[in-house]
Amino acid sequence: MARIAFGRFNDSFSLGSLKAYLAEFISTLLFVFAGVGSAMAYNKLTGDAALDPAGLVAIAVCHGFALFVAVAVGANISGGHVNPAVTLGLALGGQMTILTGIFYWIAQLLGSIVACYLLKVVTGGLAVPIHSVAAGVGAIEGVVMEIIITFALVYTVYATAADPKKGSLGTIAPIAIGFIVGANILAAGPFSGGSMNPARSFGPAVASGDFHDNWIYWVGPLIGGGLAGLIYGNLYITDHSPSSYEF
Amino acid sequence: MARIAFGRFNDSFSLGSLKAYLAEFISTLLFVFAGVGSAMAYNKLTGDAALDPAGLVAIAVCHGFALFVAVAVGANISGGHVNPAVTLGLALGGQMTILTGIFYWIAQLLGSIVACYLLKVVTGGLAVPIHSVAAGVGAIEGVVMEIIITFALVYTVYATAADPKKGSLGTIAPIAIGFIVGANILAAGPFSGGSMNPARSFGPAVASGDFHDNWIYWVGPLIGGGLAGLIYGNLYITDHSPSSYEF
Amino acid sequence: MARIAFGRFNDSFSLGSLKAYLAEFISTLLFVFAGVGSAMAYNKLTGDAALDPAGLVAIAVCHGFALFVAVAVGANISGGHVNPAVTLGLALGGQMTILTGIFYWIAQLLGSIVACYLLKVVTGGLAVPIHSVAAGVGAIEGVVMEIIITFALVYTVYATAADPKKGSLGTIAPIAIGFIVGANILAAGPFSGGSMNPARSFGPAVASGDFHDNWIYWVGPLIGGGLAGLIYGNLYITDHSPSSYEF
Amino acid sequence: MARIAFGRFNDSFSLGSLKAYLAEFISTLLFVFAGVGSAMAYNKLTGDAALDPAGLVAIAVCHGFALFVAVAVGANISGGHVNPAVTLGLALGGQMTILTGIFYWIAQLLGSIVACYLLKVVTGGLAVPIHSVAAGVGAIEGVVMEIIITFALVYTVYATAADPKKGSLGTIAPIAIGFIVGANILAAGPFSGGSMNPARSFGPAVASGDFHDNWIYWVGPLIGGGLAGLIYGNLYITDHSPSSYEF
Repeated sequence: MARIAFGRFNDSFSLGSLKAYLAEFISTLLFVFAGVGSAMAYNKLTGDAALDPAGLVAIAVCHGFALFVAVAVGANISGGHVNPAVTLGLALGGQMTILTGIFYWIAQLLGSIVACYLLKVVTGGLAVPIHSVAAGVGAIEGVVMEIIITFALVYTVYATAADPKKGSLGTIAPIAIGFIVGANILAAGPFSGGSMNPARSFGPAVASGDFHDNWIYWVGPLIGGGLAGLIYGNLYITDHSPSSYEF
Repeated sequence: MARIAFGRFNDSFSLGSLKAYLAEFISTLLFVFAGVGSAMAYNKLTGDAALDPAGLVAIAVCHGFALFVAVAVGANISGGHVNPAVTLGLALGGQMTILTGIFYWIAQLLGSIVACYLLKVVTGGLAVPIHSVAAGVGAIEGVVMEIIITFALVYTVYATAADPKKGSLGTIAPIAIGFIVGANILAAGPFSGGSMNPARSFGPAVASGDFHDNWIYWVGPLIGGGLAGLIYGNLYITDHSPSSYEF
Repeated sequence: MARIAFGRFNDSFSLGSLKAYLAEFISTLLFVFAGVGSAMAYNKLTGDAALDPAGLVAIAVCHGFALFVAVAVGANISGGHVNPAVTLGLALGGQMTILTGIFYWIAQLLGSIVACYLLKVVTGGLAVPIHSVAAGVGAIEGVVMEIIITFALVYTVYATAADPKKGSLGTIAPIAIGFIVGANILAAGPFSGGSMNPARSFGPAVASGDFHDNWIYWVGPLIGGGLAGLIYGNLYITDHSPSSYEF
Repeated sequence: MARIAFGRFNDSFSLGSLKAYLAEFISTLLFVFAGVGSAMAYNKLTGDAALDPAGLVAIAVCHGFALFVAVAVGANISGGHVNPAVTLGLALGGQMTILTGIFYWIAQLLGSIVACYLLKVVTGGLAVPIHSVAAGVGAIEGVVMEIIITFALVYTVYATAADPKKGSLGTIAPIAIGFIVGANILAAGPFSGGSMNPARSFGPAVASGDFHDNWIYWVGPLIGGGLAGLIYGNLYITDHSPSSYEF
């Protein structure tokens, strides 16, 4: 299995790194296409009805399955982050350099934006739904919700994929990463939307031109993901060699 | 684990190849029987009502679970393609010969047709539902949708099963392949139907005698699967020996 | 991992075999308790309404998850059959003796019966629902449906668990076995009930005293499971040593 | 993979043990946050309607997915119990000392309580729903239900994770542990609530100040988990060295 080492500046422009950026772009595109697509499918089937429990299951299961696969198909090329909060969490835990992280972010955001414009085309021009907090939920509450559930996600990435002591957990890491997102959407969906991922929220905002509440899905996930990286990285990983990240 | 090598002409008629064709026939039969059966189950339960979100979950989960198993049970015998678009994608990526691929196609199409006739019998003669684009979605939009979601499927096949660098991902490859189809049906189901598989669409067309829109499920998946094979095979697989495909 | 060899008569009464029968009893009890319980849960929530798609998802997912676990927890002790049709299929494929198979059947049937009486107690005396064919579906159609879906199940057991060439598929075998049952219930549930397992159907018949249609769930699964054993065992397994079955 | 040995008194206060308590706290917090959150999400979406089958699927799938992940992320640090009944079952089976078990319990209960107070905050002050038996189900019936389904859970923990003979089952152990809980909620949810876990039930009772029926979710799970530990530990595990527990 290929090691992903980002210890030196030049590595950010190596052929391997360029392939990694492309892999992040493709993985994020495929994840966001399925995930946002499932929300649009609900709107199509119900004529834009308010979300009901069956629709929440459809959207949560779709995100969980699609993220599992997006992580898996990128795992050996880019690490399969598919999420700026994961990239930040891994950078803060000493798993990659900031410069490489920035290119990852660009690839992830572009993948999400392209996915949302493609969805507009293939659905015959339907509106692309954005993340925003529900009625009765304040912005601060939304931020705290996203902090907690993104902490869970990035903590899972560390424990099952980035920790050198992960052992056989590495085999099921992509499933765990996908399923914690599925579970958290089932809990947080009707409150904050359950993003855990700035790229997942940014693409629909660009494609719809509606950036209302979008800051929540940057602040919450980046704080939550960063905290998970600092805590897990400092507490549970004793070997801090920068090249230790691999699936 | 058995290697599947298709480097020479004679291999297409070897005993191992004949067993592989039979395995593709059986796997495709079992997959289509469950998948199309779940659509007929919805019609039976609801008296042919329009699809709702709970029904979409039922159909998507059934296809995801059944494809996972169909791929798994064929993996060590035929590679577990169960899909002409996967076979084409692997051939274009240099993983098998065209001649063997043609026999795979025949086995897959026969498996799907037999499954649909069996469904007619065991359901007491219910109509076998075909794939077609939804109201408000044009044929071109349907084709593009199928290109994108089949690209995701065949890209997943490459990254988790065909890539010699797959490592421990190989263990969960059949789950990833099944679940990307489940996720994509949750997104694309209400628009293009979410086929990703000419065999999955062809059987119901034959059994019902209705070939309306059927070309969409040949053109879209074959372009999407072929693109995935060309891109992944040329970009991410450095070792092109024709015998490198195995689960 | 413990090998399960049933090549000689005495083995049927060894301490290891007695532990295996107990493991089959416990695994079947836990599987049937959850599976039949999910059908009773639907009746409780809806006041005995006709099955709808959301209920079908609940019941199918419950059976799929519970069978996966029942197979897994028995795998290293008894092989985790949990099903007379699986036991017959393995016996016909040369994987165990008939005598041992008979004790397996008894343990499975007892586990199912105990589970159903326990369900009666803990639900405050609710009726235990039995398997029967739906209106519009004849007995022969029910038998053929059960033959096909049980063939799929036992074929999966062979390809992922009993085949000495299974390789890394063995790791995910219990998931595959559970999920093919989940998928098949999503297809067959509204027609034949989707049993695939005489023990699963027999317990409710005993606890409710209603043996109407029960023969269908013996004839169909045993033919389907037997066929799968004969076909897979003779066609795809070249090494027929009787001690080759293990997870 | 790190071994977790609790054979001596001092081990309960070692740095490794303190890290294990923190891991139990975090894992339980994340599990209860998602699980209880999914019940609150149902109430939010439906305006506190009575549970329907789609809602039961949402809640069961969320608990199943979240527990799988909570077990996985704790596996190599604390064993990933996330549940006082699991801890008791492992102690009774000779897998850990009572003193260490008590600290595990405290960490689990604190994690659940914190999760429930956080949920109150981020949902804008919604009520935190507690476990209680349904109308028509008596307290004794609830206790027996919880005994049976917790037996299934702890038996699964033993067979897939604690048994030294588990072999490749260890790789999928966290999935099995999560999914048996998902399956059991689909069966028991509408009757006893389907807790299987005193910590899961205690946090909501504290946060809501309503301890009605709470004793049921201590007595039932602890008896069921203890029984599973005694039976599996004495019958199927022949090597009783106290340091044999690991994932």
